[in-house]
Amino acid sequence: MQPFVYSIRIEAPFPSLQDNTGDIDRLMKALRATAGLSPRLPFARLGEVAAAFRGSGFKGAALICDLPDGPMLVDFLPQQPSVLAAMALDLGTTHLEASLLNLVDGKVLASGNRENSQIEFGADILSRIHFAGHNNGLQKLHESIIGTINDLAGELAARAGVACGEIRALSVSGNTTMVHLFLRLNPYHLIREPYIPLVNSVDPVPAGEIGLAVHPAASVWIMPSIGSYFGGDLISGILASGLDRQEETSMLIDVGTNAEVVIGNREWLIACAGAAGPALEGGVARMGMRAGPGAIEHVTIDPETLELRYRTIDGGRPRGICGSGIIDLVASFYLARIIDIRGKFRGERCPERMIDTGEGLAFVVARADESATHEPVVIGQVDLDAMMRSKAAMYSILTTLINQVGLDFADLHRIFVAGAFGRHIDPRRAITLGMLPDLPLSTYEPIGNSSLAGAELVLRDRENRERCRMVMGKITYLELNVNQEFMIRFSGSRFIPHTDTSLFPSVPVFD
Amino acid sequence: MQPFVYSIRIEAPFPSLQDNTGDIDRLMKALRATAGLSPRLPFARLGEVAAAFRGSGFKGAALICDLPDGPMLVDFLPQQPSVLAAMALDLGTTHLEASLLNLVDGKVLASGNRENSQIEFGADILSRIHFAGHNNGLQKLHESIIGTINDLAGELAARAGVACGEIRALSVSGNTTMVHLFLRLNPYHLIREPYIPLVNSVDPVPAGEIGLAVHPAASVWIMPSIGSYFGGDLISGILASGLDRQEETSMLIDVGTNAEVVIGNREWLIACAGAAGPALEGGVARMGMRAGPGAIEHVTIDPETLELRYRTIDGGRPRGICGSGIIDLVASFYLARIIDIRGKFRGERCPERMIDTGEGLAFVVARADESATHEPVVIGQVDLDAMMRSKAAMYSILTTLINQVGLDFADLHRIFVAGAFGRHIDPRRAITLGMLPDLPLSTYEPIGNSSLAGAELVLRDRENRERCRMVMGKITYLELNVNQEFMIRFSGSRFIPHTDTSLFPSVPVFD
Repeated sequence: MQPFVYSIRIEAPFPSLQDNTGDIDRLMKALRATAGLSPRLPFARLGEVAAAFRGSGFKGAALICDLPDGPMLVDFLPQQPSVLAAMALDLGTTHLEASLLNLVDGKVLASGNRENSQIEFGADILSRIHFAGHNNGLQKLHESIIGTINDLAGELAARAGVACGEIRALSVSGNTTMVHLFLRLNPYHLIREPYIPLVNSVDPVPAGEIGLAVHPAASVWIMPSIGSYFGGDLISGILASGLDRQEETSMLIDVGTNAEVVIGNREWLIACAGAAGPALEGGVARMGMRAGPGAIEHVTIDPETLELRYRTIDGGRPRGICGSGIIDLVASFYLARIIDIRGKFRGERCPERMIDTGEGLAFVVARADESATHEPVVIGQVDLDAMMRSKAAMYSILTTLINQVGLDFADLHRIFVAGAFGRHIDPRRAITLGMLPDLPLSTYEPIGNSSLAGAELVLRDRENRERCRMVMGKITYLELNVNQEFMIRFSGSRFIPHTDTSLFPSVPVFD
Repeated sequence: MQPFVYSIRIEAPFPSLQDNTGDIDRLMKALRATAGLSPRLPFARLGEVAAAFRGSGFKGAALICDLPDGPMLVDFLPQQPSVLAAMALDLGTTHLEASLLNLVDGKVLASGNRENSQIEFGADILSRIHFAGHNNGLQKLHESIIGTINDLAGELAARAGVACGEIRALSVSGNTTMVHLFLRLNPYHLIREPYIPLVNSVDPVPAGEIGLAVHPAASVWIMPSIGSYFGGDLISGILASGLDRQEETSMLIDVGTNAEVVIGNREWLIACAGAAGPALEGGVARMGMRAGPGAIEHVTIDPETLELRYRTIDGGRPRGICGSGIIDLVASFYLARIIDIRGKFRGERCPERMIDTGEGLAFVVARADESATHEPVVIGQVDLDAMMRSKAAMYSILTTLINQVGLDFADLHRIFVAGAFGRHIDPRRAITLGMLPDLPLSTYEPIGNSSLAGAELVLRDRENRERCRMVMGKITYLELNVNQEFMIRFSGSRFIPHTDTSLFPSVPVFD
């Protein structure tokens, strides 16, 4: 185990007329002798490290940051610390999650989360990139996210009983756009054909140079990205799932704003991404919402009596429906024949719950008197149509990818499902919709917030940092936007479960 | 030849949907393919380099700084430059000398010099170190010297027809204290036993971090020092003289505020330093001055007629006497028997030129009506006494050192004499005084401003940068302050030429 930052006990001889080595040269000599290390020392740290070394009588602990191109000496402490705090950060478009680790033992000191404050400048990636292009927008977006991260760091540090300035390292896992905005890098070309990031692999960045209020010598590890639509959060997912280390071929699915999918094993990895997400993330349906308090996450409808039951995440009154709730709902609609195979409402089937919103038919999931907002929670035909496009895109992505490598879904050892989607979704219902392939449920393994988990892994051990580099060297990115096959498959997937029902033997087919 | 900064021609393929590599990753890939390089890229340069690469159509020239721990990518230009300006700087206590090189062909574009503006805070090292300790003195000294260097850089750049911001690298050669003040490092312990520098070997420093007004990504190479009294200017001297590459054993003498001496060859190097300089630098004698306009640099006195002739450096009216003039003068005094072997005036020998200044006897070198200042140029007994101490210290240092390595002076292939002292001194006269050993004059080789020459060498070629490291690893520093032998030898050397006249067979002995 070689954490990103670690300490080495040093005891150097006192200077004398016979031994007039300079203070820093003396420390370097001791590091060579003790640990075989000849670290770089950034000039900005030279004076302070020298003073600390002399001030503690030429003995104590040298703090080393284990950078990819070699060790860097960052500080000198009077003794070896029992806590070396480092923050792992999942830098989401809408939401940030972080944990503060103690790199001495790898344990989590505190966890927390925040809304992404950039939302005030644009709800989604696209609008933020447009915002970035005018009136110093990039700087505003950058400052906004740094401010939020500093708040979050302050909160975690306080809860862990350390000062913010004692946070010695960070790791950041996010989509390519979020990383650009975080680093104040021009995101202009990310959304313009041919969709080229300014950079995919960034050397660790000095925290002070981007305004982070942690220790000024803290280095920020940036999870590398593969392309504009395949970010470092997915590299984290690969690390967290272990996809890159297994002999068996598995698949990783992450549904955020996009559906991002990787297939592979320890020999090879193929990745692709496509727009499949909004409806699944609860971002499209009018009543859609993030998985949180008041979100309906599970729904059942009795196919005979049409009795509807739902469960909210916190057990409280409903406010809306999150991604997994929508999938449950639409699968239940299908099984109860409330919708047809095209995903269109069969209004006559359940007239007591159907209303006309002026934008077409809608289904009342929770009546106004049941809801937290005293407004009914409804799902409309437009929401269903979006959901159908999303599920079709999702299945098309998966089939295009599996076909690309000449395998069948049945050859997959595991399908890892990342994120909130993975945590809350019932794969059985997603199969019913024809969104996920009809495989034994044991194939599906939710892996939670693997973006954060990957960020923690790179802080904890050099091996994981090296895995980033190896994954980058091994992975092939398949561009779906130019893939004819994808477009053909997309058409066939716009039915429940599919035009080719033999692909979904476990799903009932109605005339 | 691998200059400190160089360019590599790059032509990368255009991005496309099939090749979605990030801009920086694309550039790195091209660098690997073209030159086998995987340089670091400092975060501060990331955005600008990416924009420049894209802006010039993914082809042009990558600018690389050849750092000791590997290459660093610092810029991207539309085409390979015909001029890559870099400044070599001799950072003297009283005087700065600099040259602007073109690293493309190694040629000098412009040269210049400046007074060290820190003089306003203290004429010598000692007073500046005291000044540094109070009221933000270190910052003031630092800003002062940086300001002077920026002025000098501006002047050289203007003369070479480049912008200051086009200076892509610097190298700095100075004594240990000057380097500390230049880098804003605490010099407190340099003059307090056991005289320990904060650092001897400094990794190259980003110019922007110390306020230099050159290109922000310029790296500053600092010539390493051996100890508080043996600075990087001497390492430059070793490089410039080639002492570290010759099979034959030679000696290098540099007389500044101290006398610093190195003896050795390509196998070994021993160095020492001692206070021997002020009188020789023209800093002690009341009429002493730096070699410059109006300085008397050569004097002859006819031993019979006592006719005195002098020559000033510029041929103009005299203002004072520089180091070499004082040595000429005192040697002439001895040969004309105007002083005795203890260096005391024999007032009766030349009464028409002797005056009583109130502080003892003094000799009028130039009358008031001859001088530029309308004051007589005189040398007093106190000046002679200081000169005698200096010459005794010098010879004692040399003998202690040669004895230390078990050699005789006659074993020396060369004695390289660095600095203004070396350029102007007549070794014949220094031998007469018993300051330099009585060797064939061809042994003595003046090497001019070797501090500047060494600074130029490291800019021009990696081999010379590596020589710095090798010299550091090979050199032994002999501390004279704790050397009994030195003190004993010092006593015997306080006569002209020496108590042991057999050491100086070429010098006449008078009864």
